[in-house]
Amino acid sequence: MDWQSEIEDARRRIAGHARVTPVARLEPGGFDVAVKLEQMQHTGSFKVRGAFNTLLSVDVPSAGVVAASGGNHGAAVAFAARRLGHPAHIFVPDVAGAAKIGLIERAGATCHVIPGLYADALEAAQAHEAATGAMQIHAYDSVPTVAGQGTCFAEWEEQGLDADTVLIAVGGGGLVAGALAWFGGRRRIVAVEPEQSRALNAALTAGAPVDVEVSGVAANALGARRIGDICFDLAREADSVTVPDAAITEAQAMLWREARQWVEPAGACALAALVSGAYTPEPGERVAVLICGANPAPDPVDALRTG
Amino acid sequence: MDWQSEIEDARRRIAGHARVTPVARLEPGGFDVAVKLEQMQHTGSFKVRGAFNTLLSVDVPSAGVVAASGGNHGAAVAFAARRLGHPAHIFVPDVAGAAKIGLIERAGATCHVIPGLYADALEAAQAHEAATGAMQIHAYDSVPTVAGQGTCFAEWEEQGLDADTVLIAVGGGGLVAGALAWFGGRRRIVAVEPEQSRALNAALTAGAPVDVEVSGVAANALGARRIGDICFDLAREADSVTVPDAAITEAQAMLWREARQWVEPAGACALAALVSGAYTPEPGERVAVLICGANPAPDPVDALRTG
Repeated sequence: MDWQSEIEDARRRIAGHARVTPVARLEPGGFDVAVKLEQMQHTGSFKVRGAFNTLLSVDVPSAGVVAASGGNHGAAVAFAARRLGHPAHIFVPDVAGAAKIGLIERAGATCHVIPGLYADALEAAQAHEAATGAMQIHAYDSVPTVAGQGTCFAEWEEQGLDADTVLIAVGGGGLVAGALAWFGGRRRIVAVEPEQSRALNAALTAGAPVDVEVSGVAANALGARRIGDICFDLAREADSVTVPDAAITEAQAMLWREARQWVEPAGACALAALVSGAYTPEPGERVAVLICGANPAPDPVDALRTG
Repeated sequence: MDWQSEIEDARRRIAGHARVTPVARLEPGGFDVAVKLEQMQHTGSFKVRGAFNTLLSVDVPSAGVVAASGGNHGAAVAFAARRLGHPAHIFVPDVAGAAKIGLIERAGATCHVIPGLYADALEAAQAHEAATGAMQIHAYDSVPTVAGQGTCFAEWEEQGLDADTVLIAVGGGGLVAGALAWFGGRRRIVAVEPEQSRALNAALTAGAPVDVEVSGVAANALGARRIGDICFDLAREADSVTVPDAAITEAQAMLWREARQWVEPAGACALAALVSGAYTPEPGERVAVLICGANPAPDPVDALRTG
């Protein structure tokens, strides 16, 4: 796979659709880090990059697209489809909660709230796909998705990324795969997972993707049961660390207190590797942290209704 | 006054103390605007720029500094004094609330919570000044404060500010004075005030600074009773507009929903001029919006305790 070309093509494709997100230099908790505020992306996460790249790479059927997701992927697919004029049906388990459902609806999709868990929503989405011919978009384990997420790192380098090491939160692995694909060993990649949601860490230990139990504060964004195959193949070059929920919450508070960036737990997970000591940079090592998502519950806008 | 030199000197002085804040291009509500995320500044507002410039311009007495403020100025003075090794005593009216008091305490000051309103806190601060010889730092109407705030715009130009017009929220006028001082007529400045807190607008109408009543959602940050003299002298070159509270709240929601930036009402006030139509750009006019503060109540971190 010529990932450089895939990602450069993806950049051209999604230009003007995905937002160029800002970068900054911060010192949360006294750690001097370069950050990219990718949570400022449309729909609050990097996922629209992969969604736009996918939709712009293929012939989308007239029935449009379908996804099962109570989270950032669903919102991203909804947003990209709406912008490109395709119908989108997103199947959401009712446990996703009002904030995520509102996000998906505002992004412009028809949102089907399915009683039960993710598996029930997935079943309903597959029934919709079979009945209508709508296209499923995978959340992380496809080439156009990974190449789309990789554009985040190509962009960051163009913005002057000054780092030996880049810390990235991992769920299903689309984002970290994009980083590994783009950097190709030129920078150290640290894949950071919650202790209670460690699909990549478990796969690297087992030597192959395996199912894991998922729980914890970041589970609704990072809680993939099994790492993607594309990610697993690329991730042999990555350092893998895990962080406790308490460090994620502390990193979340730190990003607000010290830089007024309010993110969801997944968005603070990479920083939590420094906070917890799961990753300790060498003296002089220049570290970057990707802030990947900000769809927290409760939605802070709710405070405006009473405030 | 050679403002260019004052501001260039201020930039050299505060380099390494104030943060270089990121810039971005956003489309909140469909308005294509350049923004500077100055709410990411230390303590969550631009005010540390003036505080550092002041403390680095003078001989600070051994008794340190004192300020009466239940808000962003108090936090900024506390932060700058702590970083420079000076004691700071901040007198806060108890109506300021737990979030602001916590902010000032975390910034490193001795925080004196005074029963009553701002006037009571000011009286206590003046008594402290008289008894100890501590130095008062004015929140907006002094040359080093205005020059410090002006560095925000010098920095923005260096970051490639691409705008004919810059929209800026106004309270006592230190920030907009800094903008007028720096740009010196090279770009149009629109001074945006809440309808219920319009010290500059009233002064421009009256031909001189006058007292106004203040209230509304942004009053705790923008609620100056009288515009500063320095600002008034510079502001004859500015456009002055006012916005209703509902537009401020709408702009606040928009910045979160469309760019995941959670700010206080004052931080959304400049954008509210576009939202409300108080300022309507000409076709092709390139507009910039300064996001100046993010110390909202309730503090979103409070959600972590129960979330």
